[in-house]
Amino acid sequence: MAAPASNLRINGDRLWESLMEMAKIGPGVAGGNNRQTLTDADGEGRHLFQKWCEEVGCTMGLDQMGNMFARYEGTDPEALPVYVGSHLDTQPTGGKYDGVLGVLAGLEIVRSLNDLSIKTKHPIVVTNWTNEEGTRYAPPMLASGVFAGIHTQDWAYDLEDAEGLKFGDELKRIGWCGDEEVGARKMHAFFELHIEQGPILEAEGKEIGVVTHGQGLSWTEVTLTGKESHTGSTPMPMRKNAGLGMARILELVDAVALSNAPDAVGAAGHIDIYPNSRNVIPGKAVFTVDFRSPDKAVIADMENKLREGGSAIAGQMGLDITFEKVGGFDPVKFDDACVTAVRDAAERLGYSHRNLISGAGHDACWINQSAPTAMVMCPCVDGLSHNEAEDISQEWAAAGADVLFHAVVETAGIVE
Amino acid sequence: MAAPASNLRINGDRLWESLMEMAKIGPGVAGGNNRQTLTDADGEGRHLFQKWCEEVGCTMGLDQMGNMFARYEGTDPEALPVYVGSHLDTQPTGGKYDGVLGVLAGLEIVRSLNDLSIKTKHPIVVTNWTNEEGTRYAPPMLASGVFAGIHTQDWAYDLEDAEGLKFGDELKRIGWCGDEEVGARKMHAFFELHIEQGPILEAEGKEIGVVTHGQGLSWTEVTLTGKESHTGSTPMPMRKNAGLGMARILELVDAVALSNAPDAVGAAGHIDIYPNSRNVIPGKAVFTVDFRSPDKAVIADMENKLREGGSAIAGQMGLDITFEKVGGFDPVKFDDACVTAVRDAAERLGYSHRNLISGAGHDACWINQSAPTAMVMCPCVDGLSHNEAEDISQEWAAAGADVLFHAVVETAGIVE
Repeated sequence: MAAPASNLRINGDRLWESLMEMAKIGPGVAGGNNRQTLTDADGEGRHLFQKWCEEVGCTMGLDQMGNMFARYEGTDPEALPVYVGSHLDTQPTGGKYDGVLGVLAGLEIVRSLNDLSIKTKHPIVVTNWTNEEGTRYAPPMLASGVFAGIHTQDWAYDLEDAEGLKFGDELKRIGWCGDEEVGARKMHAFFELHIEQGPILEAEGKEIGVVTHGQGLSWTEVTLTGKESHTGSTPMPMRKNAGLGMARILELVDAVALSNAPDAVGAAGHIDIYPNSRNVIPGKAVFTVDFRSPDKAVIADMENKLREGGSAIAGQMGLDITFEKVGGFDPVKFDDACVTAVRDAAERLGYSHRNLISGAGHDACWINQSAPTAMVMCPCVDGLSHNEAEDISQEWAAAGADVLFHAVVETAGIVE
Repeated sequence: MAAPASNLRINGDRLWESLMEMAKIGPGVAGGNNRQTLTDADGEGRHLFQKWCEEVGCTMGLDQMGNMFARYEGTDPEALPVYVGSHLDTQPTGGKYDGVLGVLAGLEIVRSLNDLSIKTKHPIVVTNWTNEEGTRYAPPMLASGVFAGIHTQDWAYDLEDAEGLKFGDELKRIGWCGDEEVGARKMHAFFELHIEQGPILEAEGKEIGVVTHGQGLSWTEVTLTGKESHTGSTPMPMRKNAGLGMARILELVDAVALSNAPDAVGAAGHIDIYPNSRNVIPGKAVFTVDFRSPDKAVIADMENKLREGGSAIAGQMGLDITFEKVGGFDPVKFDDACVTAVRDAAERLGYSHRNLISGAGHDACWINQSAPTAMVMCPCVDGLSHNEAEDISQEWAAAGADVLFHAVVETAGIVE
């Protein structure tokens, strides 16, 4: 396919206005958004997106998981479409850009093609995946997961929120349950633009992240059992201090991750101490170790080092220790041709860029199992996300959408 | 004064029966007791204690803090009494012996003197101090603290429990507020028998602890502030992990305490991590460091090492750190003559013994500021206390009461 000319750009002002318009639906309490999946606000956001899509001549498809597919025709009705999108749902105290940018940048691609009367061979389908966030209905990336065959639809329908309302019932209640079989669509490729949700691009002054891999994840819950005893009347040599054992294992986790620098990471975000009283030596510590790497073998090696090293520490301290794997997924390697299309687009458009490994999960990580996939990332201020203070600049949004535009259009084939 | 003959013993069966009888009042849910201060059960326990005291000819005094003083006359009505006792109140899930043993062993001394028609020169006063536990009305050792001039009575009366009920009102409600001015009594000496609430005596097979000192205490609340960020998308070098900083400071606390072995101890029993989510690097850690030593200078040195070393750790990791002293009291050195009386008694009676430093606070620690004071300790199973499973053997109780008997009677002066 011929590459688009470097002066071909999306309309950054229009993209920004649409982001601000969408952010009015399901406002948060601190300048961000609370537009959680399958709420009335989610339904309202979907209506606005559908209206915008139809205004530029798209036809909307809807599957039984509520995934929305706005199709902009190509010149070859037999050609598989190029899909582009992300998610419109937000965290309960979420930002205006996490997910939303990727959907509205897809819309902006179609609007720009429409402005310029450019045709592509392959149709382009702008997608809104249902329940990426997973806060109301865990797990995250639920509907893209069903699409990719990771979960069954029946299982997803039976998930309950904190009030006992089922996913399937709520999807029907808001009126966004379609007839289309989930996962039946075949894709020529899938592209997703997302804010980085990390600090690297901003810190290095790069405008574009070319996402080559998604980190694999391993969550191990560690339970250390010592003996509750009085902080005053128990001599140091007679203590079985589960809190001190935890401290030593946290240091081990750090060392193990650093020994796999620069791509691997490790930390414990969840820590509970029992009985958590100022004058009682902790008799129990429960904490979850989060290891990530783009290399499956490195994850397995880090898990082993945690189990071996943690057991040794516990043994030396007279503590009992158990390990339970409570979560995980394999690393993702995105499609070489799609990744190259993203990198070439950034280069052609003159945007500074670097390769990135996505540390968070995204719909693209599941769709990568069904279709050639790649991701574009743009910076976000201070790496902050899942927070109403999440912020990006209009320029960053436009640059990301430009790169997405070029990668999608080149893959879909401009008709000369 | 002449020492009592080594065949002079209390009645261990009677002491045990009284312990079991008292334990029927305010039973717990798991074999222990819930006889919290100023509850109806506390009042009922006081009535039983008074009845037993009066049966052996004592007259009961009662002060405005509800402290009970059962006086058994000596031969010299001008001589200052020797006081002996502890507390009848329990933790909400407390044991049958913590405090109660010390009061009923005092009663058993009087019963034994009465059995044997032995007279002492100094009167003996068996005391029940109100609210030693401090769980319903903090702080612990409240009424002995008012007696010793540590707290004012007005302040104590205004203390509120979790339901907003005032100490002074509840003391009157249960009918145990006396007329006597608190702290007006002068003592020749004070002795307290208590279970160890620690593991040393049982581990070393010793029957008696001769308590020479009470540990001083320092509580420092440490707040480490880093930056909340995603565990996946934040590279290791860009993290400000308050949880890891805490781990390093916990290791420092252990090293500082061990460098003052064997008497100093240190640990953190209270640890809170924020936001405490599996995939968020801790942005804040708040934990309380508990240092204890019988030497005031050692406590000050340990506090300084925590502040200096903790600040250095925080500085290296890009974390902010603050320290707040949230509790503390000075070490206690018990009266040499009283301690010697306890040690001599154990020796004379043929009980194995060792010196102990009390790690927990006791009424004797405050009364030591008003009168020559010492403590006797007996083992408890596995060091367990403040727990319904708290346990001692009848033999341990009898040995402790025997030693208390001899120390009290020698100090009070047997009339030949």
